[in-house]
Amino acid sequence: MIIQLEQNISPTVKEKILSSINTIGYKTTEVKTQKGIYLVCIGKNEFDIRLIGSLNGVQDVHRVSDSYKLVSRKWKVNATEIDLGDGVLIGENNFSIMAGPCSIESEEQVEKVVKHLVENNIKVMRGGVFKPRSSPYAFRGMGIDGLKMFNRICRANGIKIITEVMQVSQIAEMIDYVDVFQVGARNSQNFNLLDELGRVDKPVLIKRGMSGTIDELLQSAEYIFSNGNEKLMLCERGIRSYETAYRNTFDINAIPILKEKTHLPVIADPSHGIGIREHVPMIALAAMMAGADGVIYEVHEKPEEAASDGAQTLNFDESKQLVGRLNANYSLNLV
Amino acid sequence: MIIQLEQNISPTVKEKILSSINTIGYKTTEVKTQKGIYLVCIGKNEFDIRLIGSLNGVQDVHRVSDSYKLVSRKWKVNATEIDLGDGVLIGENNFSIMAGPCSIESEEQVEKVVKHLVENNIKVMRGGVFKPRSSPYAFRGMGIDGLKMFNRICRANGIKIITEVMQVSQIAEMIDYVDVFQVGARNSQNFNLLDELGRVDKPVLIKRGMSGTIDELLQSAEYIFSNGNEKLMLCERGIRSYETAYRNTFDINAIPILKEKTHLPVIADPSHGIGIREHVPMIALAAMMAGADGVIYEVHEKPEEAASDGAQTLNFDESKQLVGRLNANYSLNLV
Amino acid sequence: MIIQLEQNISPTVKEKILSSINTIGYKTTEVKTQKGIYLVCIGKNEFDIRLIGSLNGVQDVHRVSDSYKLVSRKWKVNATEIDLGDGVLIGENNFSIMAGPCSIESEEQVEKVVKHLVENNIKVMRGGVFKPRSSPYAFRGMGIDGLKMFNRICRANGIKIITEVMQVSQIAEMIDYVDVFQVGARNSQNFNLLDELGRVDKPVLIKRGMSGTIDELLQSAEYIFSNGNEKLMLCERGIRSYETAYRNTFDINAIPILKEKTHLPVIADPSHGIGIREHVPMIALAAMMAGADGVIYEVHEKPEEAASDGAQTLNFDESKQLVGRLNANYSLNLV
Amino acid sequence: MIIQLEQNISPTVKEKILSSINTIGYKTTEVKTQKGIYLVCIGKNEFDIRLIGSLNGVQDVHRVSDSYKLVSRKWKVNATEIDLGDGVLIGENNFSIMAGPCSIESEEQVEKVVKHLVENNIKVMRGGVFKPRSSPYAFRGMGIDGLKMFNRICRANGIKIITEVMQVSQIAEMIDYVDVFQVGARNSQNFNLLDELGRVDKPVLIKRGMSGTIDELLQSAEYIFSNGNEKLMLCERGIRSYETAYRNTFDINAIPILKEKTHLPVIADPSHGIGIREHVPMIALAAMMAGADGVIYEVHEKPEEAASDGAQTLNFDESKQLVGRLNANYSLNLV
Repeated sequence: MIIQLEQNISPTVKEKILSSINTIGYKTTEVKTQKGIYLVCIGKNEFDIRLIGSLNGVQDVHRVSDSYKLVSRKWKVNATEIDLGDGVLIGENNFSIMAGPCSIESEEQVEKVVKHLVENNIKVMRGGVFKPRSSPYAFRGMGIDGLKMFNRICRANGIKIITEVMQVSQIAEMIDYVDVFQVGARNSQNFNLLDELGRVDKPVLIKRGMSGTIDELLQSAEYIFSNGNEKLMLCERGIRSYETAYRNTFDINAIPILKEKTHLPVIADPSHGIGIREHVPMIALAAMMAGADGVIYEVHEKPEEAASDGAQTLNFDESKQLVGRLNANYSLNLV
Repeated sequence: MIIQLEQNISPTVKEKILSSINTIGYKTTEVKTQKGIYLVCIGKNEFDIRLIGSLNGVQDVHRVSDSYKLVSRKWKVNATEIDLGDGVLIGENNFSIMAGPCSIESEEQVEKVVKHLVENNIKVMRGGVFKPRSSPYAFRGMGIDGLKMFNRICRANGIKIITEVMQVSQIAEMIDYVDVFQVGARNSQNFNLLDELGRVDKPVLIKRGMSGTIDELLQSAEYIFSNGNEKLMLCERGIRSYETAYRNTFDINAIPILKEKTHLPVIADPSHGIGIREHVPMIALAAMMAGADGVIYEVHEKPEEAASDGAQTLNFDESKQLVGRLNANYSLNLV
Repeated sequence: MIIQLEQNISPTVKEKILSSINTIGYKTTEVKTQKGIYLVCIGKNEFDIRLIGSLNGVQDVHRVSDSYKLVSRKWKVNATEIDLGDGVLIGENNFSIMAGPCSIESEEQVEKVVKHLVENNIKVMRGGVFKPRSSPYAFRGMGIDGLKMFNRICRANGIKIITEVMQVSQIAEMIDYVDVFQVGARNSQNFNLLDELGRVDKPVLIKRGMSGTIDELLQSAEYIFSNGNEKLMLCERGIRSYETAYRNTFDINAIPILKEKTHLPVIADPSHGIGIREHVPMIALAAMMAGADGVIYEVHEKPEEAASDGAQTLNFDESKQLVGRLNANYSLNLV
Repeated sequence: MIIQLEQNISPTVKEKILSSINTIGYKTTEVKTQKGIYLVCIGKNEFDIRLIGSLNGVQDVHRVSDSYKLVSRKWKVNATEIDLGDGVLIGENNFSIMAGPCSIESEEQVEKVVKHLVENNIKVMRGGVFKPRSSPYAFRGMGIDGLKMFNRICRANGIKIITEVMQVSQIAEMIDYVDVFQVGARNSQNFNLLDELGRVDKPVLIKRGMSGTIDELLQSAEYIFSNGNEKLMLCERGIRSYETAYRNTFDINAIPILKEKTHLPVIADPSHGIGIREHVPMIALAAMMAGADGVIYEVHEKPEEAASDGAQTLNFDESKQLVGRLNANYSLNLV
């Protein structure tokens, strides 16, 4: 059960509500986010929900039988919209395009990509400065100095930044330079990181784990929301299967199912989802058609020279064409 | 290597070609289909392909390094188009819609579905009369009498029939009543069935196995083609993964990859691909956007009363809307 | 519900029982096997099972809630033992070793393997004459003539034969030359083949499908049993997963779970289960320890020259050592 | 390439070696562990390895073509043995049994388990105080105070402790109270955590990820080793597959393959590997037979009352019997 409290509730009134919940034997977690105050109540006893609904200070109350609560569409029917500032909105009636290189490599590289984004009216740039790599001997990113440079160029051009955070200690040093924190597939169930990201006021995009279930992804989002941050979006980026003809199996089914189960925006990553440059646009378009709120893909001036992920990275021409097709199809299906 | 022979080649000329191939130590399979005569040659020695190309009686010759040969796009760049008669074409520049119930249940049921198809300009009806069922105690279909009734009603209304064949002995009794033989997922590597379907002149749609690879699907098609039947199409219907939020994992990646690797038409089955009625249209649209040549989906007057697969079957209204959206989007992207 | 009827039941008495079952609204399948007569009754209504148990002609009655019935351990608690003749028993308190080449290749090859088996007291030889191959251009086995030769040499040396049957039409020509029909992984849900194998009196070993569930394997066995043949054994041979360090993922968990769920013998195939010669003995031993009733593995005089599966085939020395270790460990754990 | 340097190498001599490596265009990582000094050199140019081997200060040099280097058996043929003190050794010619509850719950619980371990000569106790849970509302462990209590009771009884560390900041507070740090499946690719665990002198057990490959597990171990800690062991705990008859698919194949590829000890976790109490002993025995250096399993006085994982936890009687069978079989196969 989720109880939404009135914003200006007094301690005394809240105390009375808590004691009523106590009476029915439910365990309560109080959650205060940027937008509201909630009580998440977990228990098994039967009771008349109207008794809670009629209490002073209660704005709304909903039964939520899912394993996740606050991110469920069962209590919040309307889609969540996330505001990155300067008119950049994600979710609801927007189709968001985020693009950029796998890794931030140099000032020159960032400038070229930013120029490409501006020309194509793309508002959000991706680019990793802390790179999770299977091997300890591989390139691990430019780090915090790379992020500052990345930020400087984007700010000067009105571009928002999404980049991966890998551990708790990076949050504080990164927070002023990013617009969206990205949680990578390998950290999808790094619960300490999720807890901490719930304690800051900055949007977060959570990728589904390599072989994470849809339910686990929603529970990972619940970690962040229940710690106080409801500026959240989810990302389908392909799962692991037995097929070896491509890198990951993009789970197109996950898109409509996530849209049904949660009010959070759902973003598709076609680059990791198939891992083969020629086919990335097809998967991006398919994801849009299946109901995604946006895409995040890899683009680079010269993919064949990229420091990482070149085989799945579009060049500027391919990216430009994809943007055109996404916009045309989105308009047709918007009604 | 594939050698395409001239249609009217004389035995003597062919003998000379075979002896040349023998010289370079290649093993040859001669294939005569509805459209051509081919020599599929397998070996490892190096040689100058122009020597073969310049022989009398040779129309064309191509190296094909794939594990499948005749179905590869490496020798036949143009897409294959399959003609079901009466102007019903599959592949190339057509988007084919095939729809119908999981199982043929009664004359009344078939008549209602046929009426729905005619009203929506759908030219091909699906419907099983031999049903593969996990349990021996489940409904196994109306059999050959059901097929005759199904055929009678469709013929009277200008509708083509696609239905599943489960074993070799059914081919002869079914052949006059079907327009496309369907090979189900469980028979995707039933090589004796594939061999026999290669010996008849009737189009075949092969479904990918439960956990078949893309390469295995193409090799299964090769079985049919190499026995003499090149009226073939492939079907992506979802694969088995660890996710339990839906029935199968529709492999959207397989669509562009199959289109790249083979000249055969690729059809999507969104009904089995996700297994949840509400989401079937999303997956159908996504598959079209990813490049599929058509869809095959389940429709029934009253899905909740269907003898099988009701949970993934559209009703007539949902089907009508889907047809409208498919056509609108196909037109936009056709250019 | 399974009702076991008395062996010499009269038609009148049986009729009364059927009419009683009809009264409670259950659908009945009558099954007559080599060992008994059963009524498999499927329905959902509640009733007092003692009413059925007390009827004339009823020997025993059991509720079975599983999706499979006759192969369930819920009605037959004792393990099934299969008698191949000449004292060769499978199941119960025997540990069976079956070995031989992937493919039957020549008289000389069979003679050498038979000699190895005799020397090591192995009573059952495997060897394929009809080979399912992914590619139509690969070696597809010696066929029925190979089987006759295989049979002649084995008979002369007191060795039993297990070999794969791929289609219904092969059953009649093979039946006099085999002791156990093997159903391969690709045919694990070839229901017509299963139906027909239920109509002959010859033991059958069913392999689990590439990505078949444990439940599906049991339902495939139910197909055979419910058609009249209860001389059945099951085989775990590895499933498909994302891991590429070996050929298949041997599902060791399936062994104790199958032993719990069914009274049928469970055989392990470590050769296909891991696909790497050096590790086959480890998997064979592990399977025995997990409760398998036997193993079936590939052995060849010169694995590197085998017509198929050489990479997972033991040579005679490795095979001899494995037999020694299997016997020593089986004795220790027998108590 | 791995170059093992002499322990007392002088800076000048080392400098010369580094400059030689530089000459051939290889990138070098210097690694100093508890046992040695290594240079891991990565590059693609051809060169004569004897030129490196003959340099002053070089003790040994090996080519290692694997993606992981220091954990590979290609340079260190002998098995690694890990000394937990007081004669408790893991790896080589020992079979290690580690057991304990999923979660540390209370002083009384720990005392009872410790008594059980002492009676059965089990030297290492597992038990979580920081628990990774899919849901933020589930019990997340007793934390550091629980660990101190756990440690106090174990120290008094000569029992070693293995427990999970979830994030970098916990390492310092935990290090004095644990004998082995456990990295859980969800953190198997938490590279920052792995880096930090490489910088302490305390044994680490790394679990394979939910759907981690064998290669990824070895690369995760490489992270720790290359940061300076070579007291490492690996743990197979089951992978994710499509099968739902049990919790995870215990990958028995991984045991012999890991033993072939690495010199590190390999431990099996049969509790998570199958997730069903009755079958845990079978899987433990199978893993031992496949070559595991030890097992780690869950045991509790009253599994049905355990705070977590009760369904896969043995009671004391079951645990006692398992220990007896493990020891008897290990002895038989030790030769």
